Amino acid sequence: MPEFLKLIPTQQALQILLSEMQVKVSRERVKAIHALGRVTVESIYSPIPLPTFPRSTVDGYAVRAADTFGASESLPAYLRVIGEIHMGNSPGFDISPGETGLIHTGGMLPDSSDAVVMVEYTQQVGADNIEILRSVAIGENIIKIGEDVQSGEEVIPSGVRIRPQEIGGMAALGILELEVAKKPIIGMISSGDEVIPPEGKLSPGQVRDINSYSLSALFDQAGAIPKRYGIFPDQADQLAAIAVQAMKECDVVVITAGSSASARDLTARVINKLGSPGVLVHGVNIKPGKPTILAICNQKVVIGLPGNPVSALVIAGLFVVPVIESLLGLKNVGVHNRYLAKLSTNIPSQAGREDWVAAKLHGNASGYQVDPIFSKSNLIFSLVRANSLIRVPPDATGLSAGDLVEVQLLS
Amino acid sequence: MPEFLKLIPTQQALQILLSEMQVKVSRERVKAIHALGRVTVESIYSPIPLPTFPRSTVDGYAVRAADTFGASESLPAYLRVIGEIHMGNSPGFDISPGETGLIHTGGMLPDSSDAVVMVEYTQQVGADNIEILRSVAIGENIIKIGEDVQSGEEVIPSGVRIRPQEIGGMAALGILELEVAKKPIIGMISSGDEVIPPEGKLSPGQVRDINSYSLSALFDQAGAIPKRYGIFPDQADQLAAIAVQAMKECDVVVITAGSSASARDLTARVINKLGSPGVLVHGVNIKPGKPTILAICNQKVVIGLPGNPVSALVIAGLFVVPVIESLLGLKNVGVHNRYLAKLSTNIPSQAGREDWVAAKLHGNASGYQVDPIFSKSNLIFSLVRANSLIRVPPDATGLSAGDLVEVQLLS
Repeated sequence: MPEFLKLIPTQQALQILLSEMQVKVSRERVKAIHALGRVTVESIYSPIPLPTFPRSTVDGYAVRAADTFGASESLPAYLRVIGEIHMGNSPGFDISPGETGLIHTGGMLPDSSDAVVMVEYTQQVGADNIEILRSVAIGENIIKIGEDVQSGEEVIPSGVRIRPQEIGGMAALGILELEVAKKPIIGMISSGDEVIPPEGKLSPGQVRDINSYSLSALFDQAGAIPKRYGIFPDQADQLAAIAVQAMKECDVVVITAGSSASARDLTARVINKLGSPGVLVHGVNIKPGKPTILAICNQKVVIGLPGNPVSALVIAGLFVVPVIESLLGLKNVGVHNRYLAKLSTNIPSQAGREDWVAAKLHGNASGYQVDPIFSKSNLIFSLVRANSLIRVPPDATGLSAGDLVEVQLLS
Repeated sequence: MPEFLKLIPTQQALQILLSEMQVKVSRERVKAIHALGRVTVESIYSPIPLPTFPRSTVDGYAVRAADTFGASESLPAYLRVIGEIHMGNSPGFDISPGETGLIHTGGMLPDSSDAVVMVEYTQQVGADNIEILRSVAIGENIIKIGEDVQSGEEVIPSGVRIRPQEIGGMAALGILELEVAKKPIIGMISSGDEVIPPEGKLSPGQVRDINSYSLSALFDQAGAIPKRYGIFPDQADQLAAIAVQAMKECDVVVITAGSSASARDLTARVINKLGSPGVLVHGVNIKPGKPTILAICNQKVVIGLPGNPVSALVIAGLFVVPVIESLLGLKNVGVHNRYLAKLSTNIPSQAGREDWVAAKLHGNASGYQVDPIFSKSNLIFSLVRANSLIRVPPDATGLSAGDLVEVQLLS
């Protein structure tokens, strides 16, 4: 059989693909309020210092710290209250030695004040005077101009995914728009004489297309735009024609093969005709997913996934998602949501091969346990019943109950 | 001061709110291909068995297992090849004793065959005969009808979030639509005399609205629809009027207070007028976020968040997100993405209070480390620099370098 002359280890296969691929991140401008989950393509610098004025962090009295030195409950300092600083306004007055002003949390300090005494440590004395019952140091209970960020400081680096706090940070700075990576378009072609669309009626021997739909969702989740080209028979000319079209319209092309060996070989032959250098890896030392094909044709990544839906989803997570992350310009590609958990049952495995076993992770940060879900033929509902995958490293001959094992969350 | 007469522990405060709230999950029908991230509101049962026909899991020959018993390399069994089973079709023939048919992975077995011999363990002999070099047991290398799921079996329970594998599973079963929870609408009102919109020009003493934007993104991420009502001055009548409107149009109302103590008291007074029972918790034993207000007014949850943007985001994660998850009908509310990590630096804390400290988590499943990011006044960019929060439990008087500590990923 022509396939699998040489099986490549998973990590090495991914490295071959990522090092050969040409990453040219396309960009577009979006509103900051719509940027959740998008990836920055350039550093964002602060146009202003934050805060823009010295603020109180407590409710109390703005003072010259020197006026409070030595103050205590038994020997309070006396200050004259010359006004109240209203929220959202400049104080409208300054304080001279012996004077103070009532200030609220977030209020703007008068120019000559350099600290705030908390209201709890003061006592009203008559209409316009207070006792200070505790001394404060210079800078106490205030935030200085630029203490959060300086003007011109890099506040959001290039290559990071925007989270709620970045959106909040941009709002604080008045940044209303930003440049983000365009979502790469991932073309998906399903092949297989036995495959029909989900809405079709099954005749004996036929199965519905699972991969176009589960993979669409996975690619969407990863920040790409999935584009489904539909189902094609295991026939070289038709498959090649649609692949050529997808190459024109997409940034990455994913072909899921029919489940037979001849269908998988067909995929490799078709991919090799799409451009040079063509197939880089044909066969990965992994279960499920051995028949994986990794290729670059005319500077575009083309991936041949196994037809089995579990294999396709696991392999897409391990190879297509990192490609998407690279095309988005993300810095840390590939490893997210990995947990260490205590294995409940022995898992047999063949030494020299990396295995991924569907599993159920439970517990909490102070202790995770994981139960493998054994399914002899990688049936799709074994992944529906799972919330994670256990990684059996290639150098292990199985894992034992009680071992702390590496678990990838499926989310 | 009227606030914080009694501080409630975090877990207890959440329990009070969740046990008092009325959960009535609204539903809508969506296409399965658009259901990623949505939550099921009823069990989904399989209309068919899967697979719908007995399938081969290998490339090889469909046999009656009895015909192979005792076969070995030195004493092979001989079988007559009477046809090939084409992918996507019924076999079109049955096999009698002594007969076999060529079959591909995923192909449909002839009625009388009960096992498949892998092609590797066969040898062609002339045009129509093969040698079987190894015996197979009944059921070997085949998947039986219903082995993945039985007809009528519950395949996706109620109250789970749809992931790529559920979308694939539904495609396999021909399920094109499903009932999911309607996204709850979360009304957001910002108050504060000092607060202006992000697009506004700052005068001295003013700050831009952060919370409406960071919280919008957080609620969107959690599966809700955020609805921003804008910024209102710390003035009871105006705040009450907009809150009444938001109560009519939304499932949950969130009011972020101005940063001064009087603004926070105002929020509590306004909430208490929105309906009974009103404020359930005013003041939580947590840092940041002590001034949190949890209320139920006319069967709707109303939450008063602190004005400080870090406090608001942390408290929204701890209280509003679980409310959203409850309204979606999710089963496991509140704890996700928790890691155990080795602390790099001592963290001081006050016994009896739960602290959440911005931090940087790094490493991988075989060992996470976490560095706290100290920021004296909960500035928004401390969360932009962070990827996680360290939880300091209420019974701890600080955490020590080297401790294994609970970390919540911010994503």
